[in-house]
Order: sequence, then structure tokens, then C-alpha cells
Amino acid sequence: MKKDSKEVIVKAAIRLFNANGYSGTSIRDIASAAKVNSATIAYHFENKLGLLEYCFMYFFERYIHIIEEQFSHIDHGAKDCLKKISSELLHYQCENIELTSFVYREMSMDSQVCREIMSTYSLKEKYYFQKIFEKGFQRKEFLPHSIPYLFIQYKGLLMMPFINAHYLREVLYIFPNERFFEQKYLKEIYNWIENTLAAKVIEKKEAIL
Amino acid sequence: MKKDSKEVIVKAAIRLFNANGYSGTSIRDIASAAKVNSATIAYHFENKLGLLEYCFMYFFERYIHIIEEQFSHIDHGAKDCLKKISSELLHYQCENIELTSFVYREMSMDSQVCREIMSTYSLKEKYYFQKIFEKGFQRKEFLPHSIPYLFIQYKGLLMMPFINAHYLREVLYIFPNERFFEQKYLKEIYNWIENTLAAKVIEKKEAIL
Repeated sequence: MKKDSKEVIVKAAIRLFNANGYSGTSIRDIASAAKVNSATIAYHFENKLGLLEYCFMYFFERYIHIIEEQFSHIDHGAKDCLKKISSELLHYQCENIELTSFVYREMSMDSQVCREIMSTYSLKEKYYFQKIFEKGFQRKEFLPHSIPYLFIQYKGLLMMPFINAHYLREVLYIFPNERFFEQKYLKEIYNWIENTLAAKVIEKKEAIL
Repeated sequence: MKKDSKEVIVKAAIRLFNANGYSGTSIRDIASAAKVNSATIAYHFENKLGLLEYCFMYFFERYIHIIEEQFSHIDHGAKDCLKKISSELLHYQCENIELTSFVYREMSMDSQVCREIMSTYSLKEKYYFQKIFEKGFQRKEFLPHSIPYLFIQYKGLLMMPFINAHYLREVLYIFPNERFFEQKYLKEIYNWIENTLAAKVIEKKEAIL
């Protein structure tokens, strides 16, 4: 058994899950693409669901780690913290575009494994963003607003280009795998932070001056 | 053969495609849920792919019709037109939440049928929104901005609650099928139109006065 077979299997699985969906991919397809036999996959991941869970955890462990790391600098300001997290998460997603696309698509299913991921990683994510928004309200960096509704918009901005990667390429001629996209799109997220979260606070400050 | 069997089949298919995904649903599942035999499905839709195409067209025909109808009033102003379209599209999606969720998820696949839908409906949709944005720039209702990047954000706002309907329910405790959600979320879209598309134009006008 090759030493790096686990990694090769995961790479093949991500590519096939992204192209054909989880349900549309068989262990046999993955074995054939990874050039291993099915027993090797079973040895590492038990079955297809085990491989899916591994991909989800592989994605969300690093995703949450990025948020946790930046959150530790929250005392420098909520807006700065949110911008740093946005920049790092966008970069992470651009670097792992196939994994990101397939994880987001598969997470839209109402399945046992999705509910487990939500009750751990998504709740953790929500906890940190809630703290950032609250800190921003307290420090008057952000205007008061419904946190869940802010969060829908923010998550929508972060997810949209990856769930709809084909749409971006085929219809809008935007290529989310290019460095140019990452730079330009990050500016749009920053604009949203300034215009939706922070804009009127600045106006008020100007009015006082 | 019952007169309304076609409609019953479509309803069952939408429910199952949404719950288990297109690949995770068999004709046998649909036949059983619709209480018809597989031959009846074959008579109306040929096969599972035909049923998927029918669902896509059923969704996008009405979707594009809403845009076309509101676009005919573009002379009353680009911002008003965009707000009316947003209101109607959001309402349409809330009324057809299962269909919307599954169509958006399935459209993220890189398949023949998705590419066909994109090359007809998505290009038509893009044409109308491009006209609206351009009109807004001309009339100085909107600040100049990259149209494709505006469109990613706008589509993200419209799609996010439906692709992630389970996430909204399980993590944010927001229920996209409730009337309250539709009203509150529409305000957020209007805010985006005012703050991202139109805000600085207003500031400039104030500066002139």
C-alpha cells in the first residue's frame, strides 16, 4: 500500500464529487481515478460516507482555524478583524476551489452528516461572527442591525462564486481560479463591509465634525 | 391515466430531488411517491433527465417572465425597476421554495442540461440586468461599477437563502417559508440597492445642494 494513497484518494474524490455530485460518484469511480483498489479506500475511510465526512472535516477544520486565528486580534477593531477574515477565507476558497464548490453544494442537502457539520462547525463559525458583529456595535464601528440577516448576506458573498463557479465562467466570463478575481472580489466584500455595516457611522462622525 | 398525473409527478419529483438530490432519486422513488407506475412517467417525460429538464424550464420560464414584465416599465427609472424585480423574484422563490432550492443546487453541476439552461435563460437574464444597470448608470441613478461583479452580489443575495434553506433553519433560526422572512429580507435587498448601487450618487447630490 502506497504511503500517499490516502491523499491521492482524497484528491480524486474531491474532483469526482465536484464534477458528478456525491450521489453521482461511486467508490469504483474513485478507485479507478486514484488508481487504487476499493479495499484501499475501505481501509482508510470505511465507505463513501466516511470519505465525504473526511472531506467536510478537511474543509471546515482549516476554515474555522482561519477564523479563530484572526479572531484573536479582535481588540484591534471589529472592522479590521472582519476584513482580515474575509481576505483569508476568500484566499483559502480560491486555493481550494473544487473542494469549496462541492462542500457548499453538498451542504445544501438535508442529510445526517450535514446536520452534524452544522451543529459543530457552523455553530462555531456563527459564534465568532456574532462576537465580531457585537463588538462592532459596541465600539460604534458598525450600525446596529439584525445579526442573522447580516450573516446571510455575508455568507452569500463568500459562497456565491464557488457554488456557481460554472455560472461565473459560462455566463459572466469571470474565472474564480484566477488571482485577478480574488483581488477584485475582495474589494467588493470590503465595499459591502463599509457600505452596509459601517457607512452611516462614518456619515454621523462627519456630521459631528 | 389520470388527467392530473403529470402535475402529481412533477410535485413528487420536486420534493424528492430537493430532499435527496437528482442523482440520489430514482424513477421508481418518484413513481412510488406520486402513486403512478413508471410507464406513466415515461409517457409524460421519457426519462429522469426529461423530468429534470421540465423542472428547470418550469422554474426559469416563470422567472424570466417576471423580469420581462417588470423590464417593460424601465422608463420609470432603473432603481425602481430593479426593486420591483427583486420583490417579485423573492416572492416567487418563497412561494416555490423546494423547487428553487433544488434548481439552484442542481444548476451548480457542470452538466449538459445546465449548460443548455445557462445558454438560454441565464444569458437572457443577464441581458435584462445589464440593460437595467446601464440605464441606471446613464441616468446617474447608480454609480459606475463593474456589471459582472455587481451581478455576482445581486444573484448571491437572491439565491443564498434558498440554496442554504436548511442552514438558515438549523443555524440561524430563520425560516424562508414564512411571510416575515420575505418582508424582512426584501428590505435587505433594497438596502443593498441603495448602499451599493446608489448611495454615493445621493451623497453627491447633497454636496451640490
